[in-house]
Amino acid sequence: MATLFPQRPVCREVVLGIDFGGTKVALATASADRVDRPLRTARLPTRGAEGAERVLRRSLDAARALAGRGALHAVGVSTFGVVRGGTVRLAPTVPGWEGLELPRLLREEFGDTPVAIDNDVNAAASAELRWGALRGASTALYLNLGTGLAAALVVGGRVVPGAHGAAGEIGYLLSRPGESAFADGRAPLEEVVSGQALARRGSTLLGRQVSAASLFGARADPSVRALLDGAVESLAMAIANVCVVLDPERVVVGGGMMGAAEQIMPRLAAEVRRAVPFPPELVSARFVDDAPLYGALALALSACGGT
Amino acid sequence: MATLFPQRPVCREVVLGIDFGGTKVALATASADRVDRPLRTARLPTRGAEGAERVLRRSLDAARALAGRGALHAVGVSTFGVVRGGTVRLAPTVPGWEGLELPRLLREEFGDTPVAIDNDVNAAASAELRWGALRGASTALYLNLGTGLAAALVVGGRVVPGAHGAAGEIGYLLSRPGESAFADGRAPLEEVVSGQALARRGSTLLGRQVSAASLFGARADPSVRALLDGAVESLAMAIANVCVVLDPERVVVGGGMMGAAEQIMPRLAAEVRRAVPFPPELVSARFVDDAPLYGALALALSACGGT
Repeated sequence: MATLFPQRPVCREVVLGIDFGGTKVALATASADRVDRPLRTARLPTRGAEGAERVLRRSLDAARALAGRGALHAVGVSTFGVVRGGTVRLAPTVPGWEGLELPRLLREEFGDTPVAIDNDVNAAASAELRWGALRGASTALYLNLGTGLAAALVVGGRVVPGAHGAAGEIGYLLSRPGESAFADGRAPLEEVVSGQALARRGSTLLGRQVSAASLFGARADPSVRALLDGAVESLAMAIANVCVVLDPERVVVGGGMMGAAEQIMPRLAAEVRRAVPFPPELVSARFVDDAPLYGALALALSACGGT
Repeated sequence: MATLFPQRPVCREVVLGIDFGGTKVALATASADRVDRPLRTARLPTRGAEGAERVLRRSLDAARALAGRGALHAVGVSTFGVVRGGTVRLAPTVPGWEGLELPRLLREEFGDTPVAIDNDVNAAASAELRWGALRGASTALYLNLGTGLAAALVVGGRVVPGAHGAAGEIGYLLSRPGESAFADGRAPLEEVVSGQALARRGSTLLGRQVSAASLFGARADPSVRALLDGAVESLAMAIANVCVVLDPERVVVGGGMMGAAEQIMPRLAAEVRRAVPFPPELVSARFVDDAPLYGALALALSACGGT
């Protein structure tokens, strides 16, 4: 999490959260003393094909409309990709988002209001740490099974960014030696097991457009079952391996694919028990649909010195 | 790293380091203001088959002889296995070491002298952080290619233990779904790629006892080359994956197998460059033979409040 402006000691009034997602941009205002109960919310389609400039302009227009005339005391922003220094990286979904100087553009918009920014999965983990299933955890993992696949690492009770803001980007994990990798323009694990990947692979298999959710619902079909079993098996090995490396006390799993939690969680737990010397507990996230938006609000609170 | 006793503010006199290794126990005393230049050293064979009690008794006898009559100002201890709470775990090599209450036994020996204890690989990483190739690193990985296979994670400039002292125990990583794992009494990656594993597999292949070092020297033999290539390939995938998870700025590699660094390091670096979004630099450790002993001295310095 990068705080862009000097922290103010306390903020008792309204904070703004913005979550830039690949399909929608979600916004919320909240009273700083009850950030987990938004006052007003809005959402708009991302329409990434229009390019980063338009997405950002429409989003900031919506933010202004939502915030109204009162002074904002802090802004928290979550975005897909990772935030490294002054730019967004690893964000191929929206044209122009890769390399976008989002911190500078937010500074221009919000003047001297404190702004904090982080990627969507780290933001979601911040919300779980503050109000949800990661509360009280020191070493832990937040796993997002959504359109994409990524995780956040918690060490010492905080989300840690890594050296380049890319800690927990497990979509790039290799499952076998020699397979195509990041340098080939690929995200090998994410291409097998994310919501987007399952929808694409399921649609090819069945010859019609299906969502990941409907694929989990069509498990009676043996070919669908084989596809899902393979994906969950790859995911389970990867998560077990991440647990071997990090030795977390808890793994919190969120994201849209948790609609099929009963088909996923027991198999993740079984592989973790099998492979990890000190198996962590696996639990469902508190925030499912709006985790990164709540995360943006949590970031806003951090930006103005809230604990 | 667990500090067992209240820290003293400054210690200007003699500190003691003990490294319990699977084949040898190494000891050193040093002046607290020049801990990286030991005053006296000693080593004895572990002879693990004699059991933990005898190993410990012989080692503490040697420690007393080494320290002489002067007061010790702090003691640092590194051990194979991992230290969890009051006992040593994941230490099957020496009978009785698994579950040994080493912290209590050290307290009984050293009275109110501050004692710090950690596992050997974390201790080695502490030495590299203080005096070696990890100096100045914030997020980093220390990789030990020795008789066994393990790593230490550095986050925020410190070695982090994980929730149960087992962070970085990469010998338990899975390389393919369904392979035998920790719960089956196995350490799947360590059984492929550690010094001990290469010696065992090479001896079976060649029909005579060989060490890992001599195996690397016999690379002209195509069957040896195939064995080594497979092992280094598995290791490279695992290290690339750890880097995807942690996003380190630097990976420091030490341990006895670094005698064959020119056969290992370029291939690790190539796989890291291929798979990791922001590839860290790979460098050789400063300490090779005595890394955990220097680590024990670094721990002693921490125990008495040295920075």
